[in-house]
Amino acid sequence: MSQANTTDITTYMQSVGKQARAASRALAAANTGDKNSALMAIHDELVNAKPDILAANKIDMDNGHKNELDSALLDRLELNEARFNAMLQGLKDVASLPDPIGEVTDMTYQPSGIHLGKMRVPLGVVGMIYESRPNVTLEAASLALKSGNAIILRGGSEAFESNQAIAKCIIKGLSQTDLSEHSVQVLQTTDRAAVGELITMTEYVDVIVPRGGKGLIERISNDARVPVIKHLDGNCHTFIDSDADPEIAIKVSVNAKTHRYGTCNTMETLLIDASIAKDLLPKIATAIIEADDAMQLRVDESAESILADVITLNGHLSAATSEDWDTEYLAPILAVKVVDGIDEAIEHINTHGSHHTDVIITDNYTKSQRFIREVDSASVMINASSRFADGFEYGLGAEIGISTDKIHARGPVGLEGLTSQKWIVYGHGEVRA
Amino acid sequence: MSQANTTDITTYMQSVGKQARAASRALAAANTGDKNSALMAIHDELVNAKPDILAANKIDMDNGHKNELDSALLDRLELNEARFNAMLQGLKDVASLPDPIGEVTDMTYQPSGIHLGKMRVPLGVVGMIYESRPNVTLEAASLALKSGNAIILRGGSEAFESNQAIAKCIIKGLSQTDLSEHSVQVLQTTDRAAVGELITMTEYVDVIVPRGGKGLIERISNDARVPVIKHLDGNCHTFIDSDADPEIAIKVSVNAKTHRYGTCNTMETLLIDASIAKDLLPKIATAIIEADDAMQLRVDESAESILADVITLNGHLSAATSEDWDTEYLAPILAVKVVDGIDEAIEHINTHGSHHTDVIITDNYTKSQRFIREVDSASVMINASSRFADGFEYGLGAEIGISTDKIHARGPVGLEGLTSQKWIVYGHGEVRA
Repeated sequence: MSQANTTDITTYMQSVGKQARAASRALAAANTGDKNSALMAIHDELVNAKPDILAANKIDMDNGHKNELDSALLDRLELNEARFNAMLQGLKDVASLPDPIGEVTDMTYQPSGIHLGKMRVPLGVVGMIYESRPNVTLEAASLALKSGNAIILRGGSEAFESNQAIAKCIIKGLSQTDLSEHSVQVLQTTDRAAVGELITMTEYVDVIVPRGGKGLIERISNDARVPVIKHLDGNCHTFIDSDADPEIAIKVSVNAKTHRYGTCNTMETLLIDASIAKDLLPKIATAIIEADDAMQLRVDESAESILADVITLNGHLSAATSEDWDTEYLAPILAVKVVDGIDEAIEHINTHGSHHTDVIITDNYTKSQRFIREVDSASVMINASSRFADGFEYGLGAEIGISTDKIHARGPVGLEGLTSQKWIVYGHGEVRA
Repeated sequence: MSQANTTDITTYMQSVGKQARAASRALAAANTGDKNSALMAIHDELVNAKPDILAANKIDMDNGHKNELDSALLDRLELNEARFNAMLQGLKDVASLPDPIGEVTDMTYQPSGIHLGKMRVPLGVVGMIYESRPNVTLEAASLALKSGNAIILRGGSEAFESNQAIAKCIIKGLSQTDLSEHSVQVLQTTDRAAVGELITMTEYVDVIVPRGGKGLIERISNDARVPVIKHLDGNCHTFIDSDADPEIAIKVSVNAKTHRYGTCNTMETLLIDASIAKDLLPKIATAIIEADDAMQLRVDESAESILADVITLNGHLSAATSEDWDTEYLAPILAVKVVDGIDEAIEHINTHGSHHTDVIITDNYTKSQRFIREVDSASVMINASSRFADGFEYGLGAEIGISTDKIHARGPVGLEGLTSQKWIVYGHGEVRA
């Protein structure tokens, strides 16, 4: 298929779409037990096929080395023993989650006599586009099945052999159940034209979930006609208010910045109230540097005048430029700004942040409530590390992704993000007057 | 502005967008009393300016006659005494609705110690694009204000004077309150380039709500980068099951087809089970023709063989083509098809319907529940007229529109459709392990 021309790709994708739509109808009506059995059948097939999958992954890795892929990409591509077992455990975890489908809420009688409520239903067909990590193939398939959705998967070309080997197990597992083998379809082509078809087949695909770098996600969002649940930047702030508990301020700042760098909920900018900055900022800055000696602080003028004489910070300071306030570093770099109270803090966050996760450290009731209400972010926190903005820490059991959209799903998205609610009406022969 | 070039339009729209974003921040923090006061201040301004508004409308009507607009469009454009009063009443109704903003749900402690929940918040900035009816200007503005959103309104050029006159009252009303005058902005240009800017300014606009014909909505959906809450076809079905109560079948069919023709929840196709069609279909068809002698029935072969001899149907029957199953007539025309049981009915509805509103008439428990679960539509009903699919009949108080999307909002959309939920975390110094 890789060499197929565009007409062939269109025909191929139309047939994939049609099959997915048909499978989604059956899946929407499947019961929870059948869906869980399918997940466990896939689990058993994976256990049996472990040598084949690891061998397929070795082909991808060898090709990756030959093609001189960078080491971070090769790392994500690799399936070793530990990752394979984690993948199996993840599948069992999804099987044990409660089924979101069928929940009926808000049933009330209306003046006309009809009994009206909402029923949670699958979205239908999910399209997933992702890069190197082959375990995403299984994770996405299991989340889709559990939530009653058919899924079309398009992984990266560098993981082609691994993904096909995993797909074989999924199809084998499905074939032992009453669910359609087309419930999960891993594309058999890496032709880019297939992505173009996938994100525009509004009659067959209900939502696109891209996973990967910002470039990939922006490209997909721009070209898609199908709605996209997307995750862009995480430019997260911690604001140390004048009424902050100093110990909490230090502890949370260190955790939010240094716990991990590559994650979207890592603090990128520290804001601190001018009235306490002279006393508290040196302590926070020192603690962060102590946690990681490689840390660089990009400081505004006020912060610099406070920190310049602190000997331990020697070599860790540089002047912030206006660009720093808008940057997600994903690295041991922290922007630091002294602000004149909560109004400037909120204004800065709403203007320069990415509306992902922002934190206030304070012991003042009024300011804590203003921050919660006025900061326009997917997660807003008081006295806690931004690192908590995560599907597992939020108790969702599994994470489809983290959404930076306001529409449909916001912040960490669990199985519910792959569902919708339809209105249901139980009547007794009512007609409209 | 109408003669401005594209650069000017871009500059103008950027400034409108920036002002809307700033106003939305203040609105998000406004309390319910202030929002209601603003609505009542606008109400009073409208009462005072009634002669001016009606005079402005007369200019639009005169221009419309001169430009030979069709009579349906002229009818929608006209603001008479009754419509003006209905508009005022609508404003008071919105003021009396409960405020959706600030509702906190699902607060639970997580194992880490954080107290986690969700808070309902405004989307931010709404862009509304609509055609002739000037009362939409006020309706949209009031719904946006009540739900804490700033709004940018772009009405049809044929209603320009009316919309500007109403906008004046809105601004005057807002100026008497603490809310920003930029909370509601009616565009001062009818240049089409402004629409192009509005639907792509993702940094300033959070959602687009188009109202108008299918052509307008498809165009906007195709070009938009901002998410769109859209309403396309309403190709609604009523399926008369073999276990239907005949009286309910007749009563509901007549109401669903003949109550109104131009509405999206009107029945367009009647499906009837073969086993009862011979007895019941002539009765239903006759009752529908009795209700409106102008009715045309487009029937499949089986229905024709049953109905051909019914004398009262003389001149009302013609053979259905495959196109009929996919058509929203919005007229006294009904497609009729005899199906072989509930499986064929569900398959037909899911394939040919528009996923808007579909009804089963049955007294059988199992089939009623299968229909509810398996029909993939925004509203699915048992033994009730599809005409109930409406924000007011569903008790939403006001209706932003009816969504045919599955993402974010589905079916009738009330104030809640203009809101989102953010995660809130109340911590006590927790950090991630």
